Formats: sequence, C-alpha cells, structure tokens
Amino acid sequence: MQREKKLSRGVRDGLTSENEIIAYLIKRYASSHEILTKGIGDDAAVWRPAGAREFWSLTTDMLVEEFDFRREWTPPRDLGRKSIAVNLSDLGAMGVRPRFFTVSLGMPANMSNRWIREFYDGLAICGSEHGALLIGGDLSGAEKITISITALGESKNHKILYRSGGRPGDLLYVTGTLGKSAAGLKLLQQGIIRSRAGFRREALSAHRTPEPRCSVGQWLAQSGNVRCMMDISDGLSADLPRMCAASGTDAEIFAEKIPVFAESASWGCDPLELALSGGEDYELLFAVPRAKKRFLENLPPEFPPVVQIGIMLEGNGKVWISDGGAARRPLPVRGFDHFDLDRGRTDGRFYE
Amino acid sequence: MQREKKLSRGVRDGLTSENEIIAYLIKRYASSHEILTKGIGDDAAVWRPAGAREFWSLTTDMLVEEFDFRREWTPPRDLGRKSIAVNLSDLGAMGVRPRFFTVSLGMPANMSNRWIREFYDGLAICGSEHGALLIGGDLSGAEKITISITALGESKNHKILYRSGGRPGDLLYVTGTLGKSAAGLKLLQQGIIRSRAGFRREALSAHRTPEPRCSVGQWLAQSGNVRCMMDISDGLSADLPRMCAASGTDAEIFAEKIPVFAESASWGCDPLELALSGGEDYELLFAVPRAKKRFLENLPPEFPPVVQIGIMLEGNGKVWISDGGAARRPLPVRGFDHFDLDRGRTDGRFYE
Repeated sequence: MQREKKLSRGVRDGLTSENEIIAYLIKRYASSHEILTKGIGDDAAVWRPAGAREFWSLTTDMLVEEFDFRREWTPPRDLGRKSIAVNLSDLGAMGVRPRFFTVSLGMPANMSNRWIREFYDGLAICGSEHGALLIGGDLSGAEKITISITALGESKNHKILYRSGGRPGDLLYVTGTLGKSAAGLKLLQQGIIRSRAGFRREALSAHRTPEPRCSVGQWLAQSGNVRCMMDISDGLSADLPRMCAASGTDAEIFAEKIPVFAESASWGCDPLELALSGGEDYELLFAVPRAKKRFLENLPPEFPPVVQIGIMLEGNGKVWISDGGAARRPLPVRGFDHFDLDRGRTDGRFYE
Repeated sequence: MQREKKLSRGVRDGLTSENEIIAYLIKRYASSHEILTKGIGDDAAVWRPAGAREFWSLTTDMLVEEFDFRREWTPPRDLGRKSIAVNLSDLGAMGVRPRFFTVSLGMPANMSNRWIREFYDGLAICGSEHGALLIGGDLSGAEKITISITALGESKNHKILYRSGGRPGDLLYVTGTLGKSAAGLKLLQQGIIRSRAGFRREALSAHRTPEPRCSVGQWLAQSGNVRCMMDISDGLSADLPRMCAASGTDAEIFAEKIPVFAESASWGCDPLELALSGGEDYELLFAVPRAKKRFLENLPPEFPPVVQIGIMLEGNGKVWISDGGAARRPLPVRGFDHFDLDRGRTDGRFYE
C-alpha cells in the first residue's frame, strides 16, 4: 500500500515523502547478518534460521482510521479481513506460504463487544483460510482505530520471488481484474455503501475484502518459471516502475490488454484510469521468460485468470504504455488518494 | 506494559478490560500447529522453524501518543530507544537472543526531519546494542504518533524460560531497582523534565530510556538453574500474580528485601508503593530452586545486582507481603496509570 503522496506540504526538506524516508533508512541502517537474506529495502524481510530447511519471510503493515479506512464504510469483520489480507498479499507475492500473524490493536474506549468480536473473527478466519494462525499481539488505547499486523511465512523448496530478477524480453502478466477496488471506493464516496446489484456488489467486496493471491503466488513460485513478482497495491502506474527499477529494466504495457473492470463506467469511473492508478487491487504482477510461457496453460481452473499485459525492455525503471497502433508514450506515475481526506496521507512500507 | 485498567467505564459487558479480551481471544483462537510451541496466551509466541537448530520467539508492542507517552516529555531519540527497549525486554525475559525487529510508525504530517532521524537513530542504536537489526517496517499518516514494533529472537541451546515452571519453595529474585521509572514519571508530572542532580537524573533516565535486561536474561537462562522468568513491566503487585498463576503457585514477598528507589522519597514518592505498583521498570523477576541458588554468586560484575525478594508457596496465583515480624497480608493488585489522562487506558499484550 505504498503511496507516492507527500507526508507534508513542503515544510520539510529531504524527508518529505515516505519514499525519501525509506531511502534514508536504507542508506543509514541497511545492514547485513549471516542469516539475513533481505533486510530493509525489498519486498519483505527474508532470513534463514540457522539449520532451517526453508527461508522465513516477514511483512508488517499499519492501518490507521481516517488515513487508511473509514469506520462508517467498513464493518468490523471486513476490516479484520482486509487488515490481514493486505499482509498475506505481500507473502503471496513472494510465493511464500503464510504461517503466523500477530495483530496489535489500538482503539477508543467505546468500541462495542460486537465490534471487537467481529474484527478478530474477520482476522482469524481470513488468516486461517490462507494457512496463517493468530499467535499474539497487543492492545492499546487510542483515539482512532489503529491496526498493526505482522505476518510470517515460510518458503517452499527455497523458492522465493522478489521484485528484482526480470530481464528485457520477459512477458508481464497480471492476475484477476484491475481497478475493481477503486471502483468500489468510488461507490462508497457516492454514498453507496451496500448494493445487491452484481457489479456494484463485486466492486464493494473488492474494496472491502480483497482476496490475497496466496495460492496463485505459491503455484507461480513453485513452477520455477517466474523471474520476479510483486502485488499490485498502488496501481500498475506506481508498482510496475518499482519492479522495473528493482530488475534494471523498462517495460511497455498494452492498454487494450489490461484486464479493466469495464462495468465501473456505469457509475462514472474511467476503468483504464482506475486499473492504472486506482490501487488496492492486491493482484499479482509477474514476469516470465517468453520461452517458458506455456506453463501458464496449466493454471489450475480455480485460480483467477492470468493475462499478459506487456513486456520488459532494456532500461532502468521507465514504463511505457501503447494503445493499439499508436506510438507508445511514457506512463505517468499517479498515486491515488484512497480517502481524499485533504491531508497528507502516506502508506509506505520500508520493504514494499 | 500490561495493565489491569478498564478499557471503558462499564458500558461494555464481558470484554471490558484487556484481560477479558485476551481471555476471550485465547479461548476462541488458541490453536496448535506442529511447529508452534507457544501461541496466544504466554509471554511471547515461540516456534521452531522446520529443521532449525533453535527456537524463535516473537513479541510485539504498540505505543500510542498520550496513552503510552507524551511528546513533550519524550525527546525522539529517547522515544526510539524506549520503543525498542520494551520489546527487547520481553525477549530478554525469556532468555532469548534478540535478532531482528521491524517498526511501523504512524505520524502527523508536521513532524520534522530531525524528529524522524533521531527517532530512528534511537531505535536502531538501542537495537544494535542488544544484537537486534532493523529489517523493515511501515509508514502511515496518523493524528497521534503511533509506534508498533515486532521483535524476533533466537534461543541459545534451546533454552527458553516462561512464566510457568515455578514450584513451591523456589526463591524469587529481581534484578536492579524497582520503582525508579515511576519516580521519574512523578518528576515529569511535577514539571521537572530535566535534572542534573544525580538521583533525579537517574529516575528520569529509568523512565525515558529503560535498559532491557537482555544479557542478564540470557545468562540466567543458559545457567539452567532458573525455573521461570518474566519482566516487571507493571510493578510486582501486577506481574508476580501472573507468574504465580502461570506456575500454579502462590508467593510471599518480604517488604524489607525489595530493592526500592529510596531517594524518590525526597520528591514526595512512596518508594515501596512505586516498587510494588509503579510499573515500567523492565527488570527481571525469576524463580530459582533453593538448592541451586549458589550459582548467582557467579553473576558477572557488569550485571545489575540481583536480590532475593520472596519465595513461592503452594497455591494458585495469590501473592502475600510480609513486613518484618508482622503477619503476612494479601498484596493488593494495583495498576498504575502512567499518564493519569482521565480516560480509559489500556496496554495489554495477548501474550504478556
């Protein structure tokens, strides 16, 4: 859920955005340890406990009311599900098998029993659906609901995928549909917090209870045919440049191939725009050498569809978009302010 | 930093205190897994990664401005140090060697560069003093500074100490001085936020930058002579009953043996009262079979003093205090409201 948004409006010099803070932290504190494979500055921390058969991976995420969610739009069970889902998505994007998670909850004194029970139920149920057990946490008072989750996972057969590793010529794929979550947010902003209509309901679900792609991620990593992978939490226009920068490539995507959520046009959305910069889709983005692409024909039918949306090119982190026969043009990076709360919003992980 | 304080003032039924919420979570979500040694409901989560030589332990803690600290009393470097110290203290109390930590930081848009740099410096320096590397985290916007840390450690020679394991007749020991941190808080509440005078300065330091007892904890665990251990984060009167309940014993402590911070009387404190219920000392409390007590004569001189304060008795979680020749009386459990902010404060870990 990293954003390009500024933390403050130009008051500060040097550490004004979370990307700058992250760069500062990497530079100042990047450290090595015999058992540490990845520390600050990559998708997640990865280490191999002495003697262990597999690598272990750890990711953490903080959600703050009014910055990351609104209480009135988010039933507690959905909030629990989404809180753990965004962490599991990180593990899924590395092909790691989720194992455990902890949750720290800061909350005002007046939260109801029912809210507390349903929040933890959402957490625990979504966790267990993907193999992750709740093993602890913390409770604190707070004015606004604040959730901090740490999720741990274990590799299978030592196979972990990072953002880096893509090469020019690799084909770029995504799972599922992009822009659906942002289309759901648009409905919420229009005051539609519930809907029985199929597509609206689907969009609201995608926003409130995204499904982490853990099984697909593990399947892709185990195939041995994927060069790099990440989850799309901020929209293609923000996330693909990160993968390209990590891989030392450029990329070109084909507008007509992007699996947009076309139905959102009926409530005033631009489906392509939301797919590119809506964010919070939690779908997987990955690169496959052209010679290996046939393995995707064996994608199990229970998985979401996988479509090729572009190709990696020689370069250093730039992304281009082409549209039918027209010449390609640079794809502008646009963060999407999920709550439009008229304040400096940020949500960047050191390692995502 | 677990408290007995109520989360709300009687509005809620059944989940009114964090102890009730924790009991609910244990009952509802306690789960087992082949590689999980301790989940919700103990000092920290402990697991042994498949094939690993050692056990791994994980603890997490959330600190919220105005509930757990006040910005005007806490320079950022000290806040960083304290935030990681309280987590390392948990690992130390198990005899575990700290390895890694992550920090999620929620903060308002107007925090200065200097604040950010010093906060992370405090964190990283204190972490590395005890062997823990910063390996990642998250950044988010928030109205109040909110810090969530997860720390991981590794056992040595498979030796981990829990709260449980004490037996009737075991001698109870503590490290260092109790009530010093609360005496420092009292100074802050009196408007004394800086002092050159030796004892006042010492008290302020104990409150702002407590020293986690990681080395002592590891030494004690490695000795093989300690039956159970925990850190004293809420004062003896709150923490010792927890150890007794976990061990299935009672305990008697001797008022005159408790290493109080006598100098605090000069600024209006009751040193014994603060030692019993002041909290935030982060000293170690542990039980040793009488026949093994001689090993403490070999305590390395660089460690804080260790004194016997009581004995474990047959029972089920009750604690008694005796004073010279007088008959023993039950020790009332008193939480200490660190900030007296006239609101429901809570700070309880599922597993602490």
